[in-house]
Amino acid sequence: MPLTRRDFTRLAAAATLLPRVALAAPPKKIRYAVVGLGRISVDHFMPGTRAGALGEITALVSGHPEKAKKLAAAYNIPESSIYTYETYDQIRDNPNIDAVYIGLPNSMHAEYTIRAAKAGKHVLCEKPMANTVAECQSMIAACMKAGTLLMIAYRCQLERTTLHAKQLVQSGALGKIQVIESCNGFNIAPGEWRLNRALAGGGPLMDVGIYSVNACRFLLGEEPTRVSAYTSVVDHDGRFTEVEENVSWTMKFPSGALASCTTTYGSNMQGYVKIHGSKGWLNLDGFGYSSIHLTAHIFGANGDPAQTVDDLEVGFDPAQFVVESDYFSKCILDNTPPGPSGEEGLRDIALMMSIYEAAAHSGGDASVS
Amino acid sequence: MPLTRRDFTRLAAAATLLPRVALAAPPKKIRYAVVGLGRISVDHFMPGTRAGALGEITALVSGHPEKAKKLAAAYNIPESSIYTYETYDQIRDNPNIDAVYIGLPNSMHAEYTIRAAKAGKHVLCEKPMANTVAECQSMIAACMKAGTLLMIAYRCQLERTTLHAKQLVQSGALGKIQVIESCNGFNIAPGEWRLNRALAGGGPLMDVGIYSVNACRFLLGEEPTRVSAYTSVVDHDGRFTEVEENVSWTMKFPSGALASCTTTYGSNMQGYVKIHGSKGWLNLDGFGYSSIHLTAHIFGANGDPAQTVDDLEVGFDPAQFVVESDYFSKCILDNTPPGPSGEEGLRDIALMMSIYEAAAHSGGDASVS
Repeated sequence: MPLTRRDFTRLAAAATLLPRVALAAPPKKIRYAVVGLGRISVDHFMPGTRAGALGEITALVSGHPEKAKKLAAAYNIPESSIYTYETYDQIRDNPNIDAVYIGLPNSMHAEYTIRAAKAGKHVLCEKPMANTVAECQSMIAACMKAGTLLMIAYRCQLERTTLHAKQLVQSGALGKIQVIESCNGFNIAPGEWRLNRALAGGGPLMDVGIYSVNACRFLLGEEPTRVSAYTSVVDHDGRFTEVEENVSWTMKFPSGALASCTTTYGSNMQGYVKIHGSKGWLNLDGFGYSSIHLTAHIFGANGDPAQTVDDLEVGFDPAQFVVESDYFSKCILDNTPPGPSGEEGLRDIALMMSIYEAAAHSGGDASVS
Repeated sequence: MPLTRRDFTRLAAAATLLPRVALAAPPKKIRYAVVGLGRISVDHFMPGTRAGALGEITALVSGHPEKAKKLAAAYNIPESSIYTYETYDQIRDNPNIDAVYIGLPNSMHAEYTIRAAKAGKHVLCEKPMANTVAECQSMIAACMKAGTLLMIAYRCQLERTTLHAKQLVQSGALGKIQVIESCNGFNIAPGEWRLNRALAGGGPLMDVGIYSVNACRFLLGEEPTRVSAYTSVVDHDGRFTEVEENVSWTMKFPSGALASCTTTYGSNMQGYVKIHGSKGWLNLDGFGYSSIHLTAHIFGANGDPAQTVDDLEVGFDPAQFVVESDYFSKCILDNTPPGPSGEEGLRDIALMMSIYEAAAHSGGDASVS
């Protein structure tokens, strides 16, 4: 479901409250504070933004002062623009920050999004959006109230090869979609914060299964009405005392299309989504930061020859993050709500909660709210 | 579950009642009556048997006299050994028939197996074994009573590449199995008997989904304890008034392994089963009559290099049927119960009934009896 007309009206009204963006001469570049200096921030978002045209990194928020100092030097950020989680609210007073990028553990997304909104900053928040539906709703409400834009970092929705796949589905080139298969997973090392339920909100479903959840919805352009699921632990080695190791779930869509999905923390997998239609199939391989590979085959019929599509997005590693960062910067510059909105993030969280609920009820199915 | 000790005792006792096989000097070749002259009989089982070492086609049972006469000529079968469905019971009096091969629509498997058993003939019956659990039980009981062997034609269980895959799983080379993915399907033409519920017992699940059901059980060597499922119809074009078009189902195994499976009559699919373990994965591609391709990858760890397996069964088309036919002939000659037994066939039917039951109950899950 896209934003409603009412959402747009409210966003447009809210936009008049944004003097920095809407009234003054627009800045050439959107200035980001990066919140949390883990791998996705340091190795991907920051170099991606630097390589892009519309954004720059102007502030850092971290609990590790030495790490922050080193990065600040590399990005030419003054020490006065390094914040801790305690001093985070002071970003309000820094006119060199337009937006924040939140690359924190899942449980911190809501708090740091809401505090950013209260400081008048736009928010680009990593996925999963939060650990609960209520948190997602609070984040959306806070940004709405503050008149700031909120985007969830679904980089695949902006990625060229994925968009080509969506076009193949939506154009009818594959015929009517019958079934979808998707998986994503890896063999997790002990001690990761992702194994802590309070921080992660769940296991591989929240972390990497979300790619399958979102890809099915995004590519098909439909919302599932029912889900069934099982979770399991195979390895009783101490890693999975708080979260599941494996999830297999099925989603039923209004058209009748069925999606079979799998995620794991117990095996290294090449993530993919494969869509089977009456006239052909496509395989998007996979959800990685680079080298997303689309293969498609349209069956020959009525004398038409079969066609194949082989479309490889290679690019350099931060390419997808360049696109993502520049996209959100452009949304801010144009005062346009981003496609991967807070509502989009909420929808995945609600669906994943339904999947967990289905699994908890003896593995039965659950209706999707 | 293999045959029990009691089954073996009964079979051994029954074997003493089988003078043709057990007492006389064993024939060099097992003599088959082929029941039903559809594609699988004519294009696969008959040439497979002729190309093998241990069997020969000595009789035909058909409702199409002209077709039967032509084939009889090609196989050097006397006209006196051509039967109709009405005269079928007379095979009892033909000493040149040791066994029957049943390649009929699913709904006829039980009747023609039971009549064969009553005529004192061994039975090789195509899969799915029958349309109901009760029919399967009657078939097993009839063959047990008659002291004849019953095999269900799971040719993949005898196929070299599939056995290599099973060895990789069972040896622990893939580590602990976490999740399995499998699909099989095709875009069905209108008018096929497979679309008639009375004849087929169900849709793609019974016809081609059974390959995924059986492959998961066979390769893993476990029986699922729970299943969840959805069925759907996407194409409202008159083909699917009696049977489903799509099924997605999930099976949970005692080890915690989860299997996500999909089958369709709405899209052409390359059937496959992919098994993800903690130490590696394998992909068996697929369930076809020829060119089954096993690919496997064992992750490198602790200084061990990664290993890959690339094992292609090409063979000529009837090769798998040569193996299947000769295997059952050898079981008869050695008076040994076949691996793909009636009990094995029954287990798949019971599981598929649970899958349909789960789908019928709002797509919820069902325990497996």
